[in-house]
Amino acid sequence: MTVPLTHEPLGYHCPFCALAAGTDMAHNRQRDIVRRTPGAIALISPRWWPGNHGHVLVVPIRHYENLYELPAEAGHAVHDLVRDVAIAIRRTYGCDGVSTRQHNEPAGGQDAWHYHVHVFPRYAGDQLYASAPYPDFVTAEQRQPYADRLRNYFDSSVD
Amino acid sequence: MTVPLTHEPLGYHCPFCALAAGTDMAHNRQRDIVRRTPGAIALISPRWWPGNHGHVLVVPIRHYENLYELPAEAGHAVHDLVRDVAIAIRRTYGCDGVSTRQHNEPAGGQDAWHYHVHVFPRYAGDQLYASAPYPDFVTAEQRQPYADRLRNYFDSSVD
Repeated sequence: MTVPLTHEPLGYHCPFCALAAGTDMAHNRQRDIVRRTPGAIALISPRWWPGNHGHVLVVPIRHYENLYELPAEAGHAVHDLVRDVAIAIRRTYGCDGVSTRQHNEPAGGQDAWHYHVHVFPRYAGDQLYASAPYPDFVTAEQRQPYADRLRNYFDSSVD
Repeated sequence: MTVPLTHEPLGYHCPFCALAAGTDMAHNRQRDIVRRTPGAIALISPRWWPGNHGHVLVVPIRHYENLYELPAEAGHAVHDLVRDVAIAIRRTYGCDGVSTRQHNEPAGGQDAWHYHVHVFPRYAGDQLYASAPYPDFVTAEQRQPYADRLRNYFDSSVD
Protein backbone atom coordinates (compact mmCIF):
# COMPACT_ATOMS: atom_id res chain seq x y z
CA MET A 1 0.00 0.00 0.00
CA THR A 2 1.41 3.38 -0.96
CA VAL A 3 1.00 6.26 1.44
CA PRO A 4 2.35 9.39 -0.24
CA LEU A 5 2.57 11.36 2.97
CA THR A 6 6.13 12.61 2.87
CA HIS A 7 7.56 15.86 4.13
CA GLU A 8 11.25 15.38 3.44
CA PRO A 9 12.52 18.37 1.43
CA LEU A 10 14.20 17.85 -1.92
CA GLY A 11 17.93 17.46 -1.50
CA TYR A 12 17.65 16.61 2.20
CA HIS A 13 21.07 15.82 3.62
CA CYS A 14 20.14 13.07 6.06
CA PRO A 15 22.18 13.19 9.27
CA PHE A 16 21.37 9.58 10.20
CA CYS A 17 22.37 8.23 6.80
CA ALA A 18 25.63 10.16 7.02
CA LEU A 19 26.27 8.90 10.54
CA ALA A 20 25.51 5.30 9.58
CA ALA A 21 27.92 5.64 6.64
CA GLY A 22 30.74 6.74 8.94
CA THR A 23 30.63 10.53 8.66
CA ASP A 24 30.67 12.82 11.68
CA MET A 25 27.92 15.45 11.50
CA ALA A 26 27.51 18.71 13.37
CA HIS A 27 25.42 17.15 16.11
CA ASN A 28 26.02 13.42 15.67
CA ARG A 29 29.47 11.84 15.91
CA GLN A 30 30.66 8.29 15.40
CA ARG A 31 31.33 7.98 19.10
CA ASP A 32 27.65 8.67 19.80
CA ILE A 33 26.86 5.27 18.27
CA VAL A 34 26.48 2.80 21.11
CA ARG A 35 25.37 -0.24 19.14
CA ARG A 36 25.19 -1.36 15.52
CA THR A 37 23.35 -4.38 14.15
CA PRO A 38 22.97 -5.42 10.51
CA GLY A 39 19.77 -3.36 10.22
CA ALA A 40 19.93 -0.54 12.75
CA ILE A 41 22.10 1.76 14.84
CA ALA A 42 21.55 3.30 18.28
CA LEU A 43 23.06 6.68 19.16
CA ILE A 44 22.92 9.19 21.98
CA SER A 45 20.48 11.94 20.98
CA PRO A 46 21.97 15.43 20.67
CA ARG A 47 18.63 16.90 21.80
CA TRP A 48 17.90 16.44 25.51
CA TRP A 49 14.95 16.86 27.83
CA PRO A 50 15.72 18.39 31.24
CA GLY A 51 14.74 15.35 33.31
CA ASN A 52 15.88 12.63 30.92
CA HIS A 53 19.49 13.29 29.93
CA GLY A 54 21.26 10.98 27.53
CA HIS A 55 18.28 9.41 25.79
CA VAL A 56 18.88 7.23 22.75
CA LEU A 57 17.67 7.27 19.14
CA VAL A 58 17.36 4.01 17.24
CA VAL A 59 17.23 4.25 13.45
CA PRO A 60 17.26 1.81 10.54
CA ILE A 61 20.50 1.90 8.55
CA ARG A 62 18.56 2.25 5.30
CA HIS A 63 16.67 5.48 4.76
CA TYR A 64 12.90 5.52 5.29
CA GLU A 65 11.10 8.71 6.16
CA ASN A 66 8.46 7.33 8.50
CA LEU A 67 6.58 4.37 9.91
CA TYR A 68 4.11 4.28 7.02
CA GLU A 69 6.79 3.33 4.53
CA LEU A 70 9.05 1.27 6.79
CA PRO A 71 9.42 -2.33 5.52
CA ALA A 72 8.80 -5.03 8.11
CA GLU A 73 12.40 -6.20 8.13
CA ALA A 74 13.71 -2.73 8.99
CA GLY A 75 10.98 -2.29 11.58
CA HIS A 76 11.94 -5.53 13.26
CA ALA A 77 15.62 -4.59 13.30
CA VAL A 78 14.76 -1.30 14.97
CA HIS A 79 12.42 -2.96 17.46
CA ASP A 80 15.05 -5.50 18.49
CA LEU A 81 17.63 -2.80 19.08
CA VAL A 82 15.13 -0.61 20.95
CA ARG A 83 14.52 -3.48 23.33
CA ASP A 84 18.24 -4.10 23.88
CA VAL A 85 18.81 -0.38 24.47
CA ALA A 86 15.86 -0.18 26.90
CA ILE A 87 17.41 -2.94 29.00
CA ALA A 88 20.86 -1.35 28.79
CA ILE A 89 19.54 2.06 29.87
CA ARG A 90 17.60 0.47 32.73
CA ARG A 91 20.73 -1.37 33.83
CA THR A 92 23.20 1.50 33.63
CA TYR A 93 21.50 4.91 34.06
CA GLY A 94 20.09 4.42 37.55
CA CYS A 95 16.62 5.22 36.22
CA ASP A 96 13.27 3.82 37.35
CA GLY A 97 11.74 2.94 33.99
CA VAL A 98 11.99 3.42 30.23
CA SER A 99 9.61 4.99 27.72
CA THR A 100 9.75 5.03 23.94
CA ARG A 101 8.10 7.29 21.42
CA GLN A 102 8.06 7.80 17.69
CA HIS A 103 6.60 10.61 15.57
CA ASN A 104 5.39 10.73 11.98
CA GLU A 105 4.89 14.00 10.07
CA PRO A 106 5.27 17.52 11.45
CA ALA A 107 1.90 17.46 13.22
CA GLY A 108 3.13 14.36 15.01
CA GLY A 109 6.27 16.17 16.13
CA GLN A 110 8.68 14.74 13.54
CA ASP A 111 11.60 17.02 12.68
CA ALA A 112 14.23 14.65 11.21
CA TRP A 113 13.19 12.87 8.01
CA HIS A 114 14.58 9.44 8.74
CA TYR A 115 12.47 7.11 10.88
CA HIS A 116 13.71 7.14 14.49
CA VAL A 117 12.52 5.83 17.84
CA HIS A 118 13.30 7.77 21.03
CA VAL A 119 14.24 5.61 24.04
CA PHE A 120 14.06 7.66 27.25
CA PRO A 121 15.29 6.85 30.74
CA ARG A 122 12.44 7.62 33.14
CA TYR A 123 12.65 8.83 36.74
CA ALA A 124 9.78 9.34 39.18
CA GLY A 125 8.49 12.88 38.70
CA ASP A 126 10.69 13.61 35.66
CA GLN A 127 7.90 15.52 33.86
CA LEU A 128 8.96 14.17 30.48
CA TYR A 129 5.65 15.06 28.85
CA ALA A 130 5.13 18.39 30.58
CA SER A 131 8.65 19.62 29.78
CA ALA A 132 10.19 20.98 26.57
CA PRO A 133 13.61 19.91 25.35
CA TYR A 134 16.54 22.28 25.85
CA PRO A 135 16.52 24.78 22.97
CA ASP A 136 20.16 24.08 22.08
CA PHE A 137 21.79 20.80 21.11
CA VAL A 138 24.08 19.37 23.77
CA THR A 139 27.79 19.02 23.08
CA ALA A 140 29.70 15.88 22.13
CA GLU A 141 31.39 16.09 25.55
CA GLN A 142 28.04 16.03 27.32
CA ARG A 143 26.95 12.98 25.34
CA GLN A 144 30.17 11.05 25.84
CA PRO A 145 29.63 9.60 29.37
CA TYR A 146 26.25 8.20 28.34
CA ALA A 147 27.68 6.70 25.16
CA ASP A 148 30.54 5.13 27.11
CA ARG A 149 28.18 3.68 29.69
CA LEU A 150 25.99 1.96 27.09
CA ARG A 151 28.88 0.82 24.92
CA ASN A 152 30.64 -0.71 27.91
CA TYR A 153 27.42 -2.46 28.87
CA PHE A 154 27.03 -3.96 25.41
CA ASP A 155 30.71 -4.90 25.24
CA SER A 156 30.40 -6.80 28.51
CA SER A 157 27.08 -8.49 27.70
CA VAL A 158 26.88 -11.96 26.23
CA ASP A 159 25.22 -11.71 22.83
CA MET B 1 19.21 -11.98 29.96
CA THR B 2 16.83 -11.84 32.90
CA VAL B 3 15.60 -8.46 34.06
CA PRO B 4 13.55 -8.95 37.22
CA LEU B 5 11.91 -5.55 37.04
CA THR B 6 8.26 -6.44 37.32
CA HIS B 7 5.46 -4.54 39.02
CA GLU B 8 2.47 -6.70 38.20
CA PRO B 9 0.64 -7.53 41.44
CA LEU B 10 0.04 -11.15 42.43
CA GLY B 11 -3.29 -12.37 41.10
CA TYR B 12 -3.49 -9.59 38.51
CA HIS B 13 -6.56 -10.11 36.34
CA CYS B 14 -5.20 -8.94 32.99
CA PRO B 15 -7.77 -7.05 30.93
CA PHE B 16 -5.89 -7.54 27.66
CA CYS B 17 -5.54 -11.29 28.16
CA ALA B 18 -9.25 -11.50 28.91
CA LEU B 19 -10.11 -9.41 25.87
CA ALA B 20 -7.86 -11.48 23.59
CA ALA B 21 -9.53 -14.65 24.92
CA GLY B 22 -12.99 -13.37 23.98
CA THR B 23 -14.25 -11.89 27.26
CA ASP B 24 -15.81 -8.44 27.50
CA MET B 25 -14.30 -6.41 30.33
CA ALA B 26 -15.57 -3.28 32.10
CA HIS B 27 -13.68 -0.93 29.79
CA ASN B 28 -12.72 -3.16 26.86
CA ARG B 29 -15.27 -4.95 24.69
CA GLN B 30 -14.87 -7.36 21.81
CA ARG B 31 -16.15 -4.74 19.43
CA ASP B 32 -13.26 -2.47 20.41
CA ILE B 33 -10.93 -4.90 18.62
CA VAL B 34 -10.25 -3.50 15.17
CA ARG B 35 -7.68 -6.01 13.97
CA ARG B 36 -6.33 -9.39 15.06
CA THR B 37 -3.23 -11.13 13.71
CA PRO B 38 -1.72 -14.41 14.89
CA GLY B 39 0.44 -12.56 17.43
CA ALA B 40 -1.33 -9.31 18.33
CA ILE B 41 -4.59 -7.42 18.64
CA ALA B 42 -5.42 -3.75 18.16
CA LEU B 43 -8.23 -2.12 20.13
CA ILE B 44 -9.67 1.34 20.70
CA SER B 45 -8.29 2.63 24.01
CA PRO B 46 -10.88 3.34 26.70
CA ARG B 47 -8.68 6.18 28.01
CA TRP B 48 -8.66 9.28 25.81
CA TRP B 49 -6.66 12.47 25.53
CA PRO B 50 -8.67 15.64 24.80
CA GLY B 51 -7.09 16.38 21.42
CA ASN B 52 -6.56 12.79 20.23
CA HIS B 53 -9.84 10.91 20.52
CA GLY B 54 -10.05 7.28 19.54
CA HIS B 55 -6.40 6.30 19.82
CA VAL B 56 -5.46 2.63 19.55
CA LEU B 57 -3.60 0.17 21.78
CA VAL B 58 -1.69 -2.69 20.21
CA VAL B 59 -0.85 -5.63 22.46
CA PRO B 60 0.67 -9.09 22.01
CA ILE B 61 -1.84 -11.90 22.45
CA ARG B 62 0.47 -13.66 24.89
CA HIS B 63 1.06 -11.98 28.22
CA TYR B 64 4.35 -10.11 28.79
CA GLU B 65 4.56 -7.32 31.31
CA ASN B 66 6.94 -5.02 29.51
CA LEU B 67 9.47 -4.46 26.75
CA TYR B 68 12.36 -5.91 28.74
CA GLU B 69 10.82 -9.38 28.73
CA LEU B 70 9.09 -9.28 25.36
CA PRO B 71 10.39 -12.02 23.01
CA ALA B 72 11.41 -10.85 19.54
CA GLU B 73 8.60 -12.70 17.80
CA ALA B 74 5.92 -10.99 19.90
CA GLY B 75 7.66 -7.64 19.46
CA HIS B 76 7.66 -8.05 15.70
CA ALA B 77 3.98 -8.99 15.66
CA VAL B 78 3.16 -5.87 17.65
CA HIS B 79 5.36 -3.67 15.45
CA ASP B 80 3.73 -4.94 12.26
CA LEU B 81 0.26 -4.25 13.60
CA VAL B 82 1.28 -0.83 14.93
CA ARG B 83 2.39 0.09 11.43
CA ASP B 84 -0.83 -1.12 9.84
CA VAL B 85 -2.88 0.76 12.45
CA ALA B 86 -0.84 3.95 11.94
CA ILE B 87 -1.63 3.87 8.23
CA ALA B 88 -5.30 3.09 8.90
CA ILE B 89 -5.62 5.96 11.38
CA ARG B 90 -3.90 8.34 8.97
CA ARG B 91 -6.25 7.24 6.20
CA THR B 92 -9.54 7.39 8.12
CA TYR B 93 -9.39 9.86 11.05
CA GLY B 94 -8.69 13.04 9.09
CA CYS B 95 -5.57 13.62 11.19
CA ASP B 96 -2.27 15.19 10.15
CA GLY B 97 0.17 12.64 11.57
CA VAL B 98 0.58 9.69 13.92
CA SER B 99 2.68 9.22 17.06
CA THR B 100 3.34 6.09 19.08
CA ARG B 101 4.53 5.66 22.64
CA GLN B 102 5.17 2.84 25.06
CA HIS B 103 5.89 2.87 28.80
CA ASN B 104 7.70 0.46 31.09
CA GLU B 105 7.31 0.51 34.88
CA PRO B 106 5.33 3.03 36.94
CA ALA B 107 8.01 5.74 36.67
CA GLY B 108 7.69 5.38 32.91
CA GLY B 109 3.93 5.89 33.11
CA GLN B 110 2.88 2.24 32.80
CA ASP B 111 -0.44 1.43 34.50
CA ALA B 112 -1.60 -1.79 32.81
CA TRP B 113 0.71 -4.79 33.29
CA HIS B 114 0.60 -6.22 29.79
CA TYR B 115 2.92 -4.67 27.19
CA HIS B 116 1.02 -2.20 25.02
CA VAL B 117 1.87 0.42 22.42
CA HIS B 118 -0.26 3.57 22.12
CA VAL B 119 -0.94 4.74 18.55
CA PHE B 120 -2.24 8.32 18.55
CA PRO B 121 -3.80 10.36 15.75
CA ARG B 122 -2.05 13.73 15.69
CA TYR B 123 -3.47 17.11 14.72
CA ALA B 124 -1.61 20.41 14.44
CA GLY B 125 -1.69 22.06 17.86
CA ASP B 126 -3.27 19.07 19.62
CA GLN B 127 -1.11 19.49 22.74
CA LEU B 128 -0.80 15.72 23.22
CA TYR B 129 2.17 16.03 25.53
CA ALA B 130 1.02 19.10 27.44
CA SER B 131 -2.46 17.65 28.11
CA ALA B 132 -3.67 15.06 30.61
CA PRO B 133 -6.07 12.28 29.65
CA TYR B 134 -9.72 12.61 30.68
CA PRO B 135 -10.04 11.35 34.27
CA ASP B 136 -12.86 8.94 33.39
CA PHE B 137 -12.87 6.10 30.88
CA VAL B 138 -14.94 6.79 27.80
CA THR B 139 -18.01 4.66 27.08
CA ALA B 140 -18.33 1.80 24.61
CA GLU B 141 -20.69 4.04 22.59
CA GLN B 142 -18.02 6.73 22.31
CA ARG B 143 -15.45 4.20 21.12
CA GLN B 144 -17.73 2.55 18.58
CA PRO B 145 -17.46 4.99 15.64
CA TYR B 146 -13.66 4.82 15.77
CA ALA B 147 -13.70 1.03 15.93
CA ASP B 148 -16.10 0.87 12.99
CA ARG B 149 -13.97 3.23 10.94
CA LEU B 150 -10.80 1.19 11.39
CA ARG B 151 -12.50 -2.18 11.00
CA ASN B 152 -14.14 -1.05 7.78
CA TYR B 153 -10.79 0.18 6.53
CA PHE B 154 -9.13 -3.15 7.22
CA ASP B 155 -12.05 -5.09 5.75
CA SER B 156 -11.77 -3.13 2.53
CA SER B 157 -7.97 -3.24 2.29
CA VAL B 158 -6.14 -5.80 0.22
CA ASP B 159 -4.01 -7.88 2.57
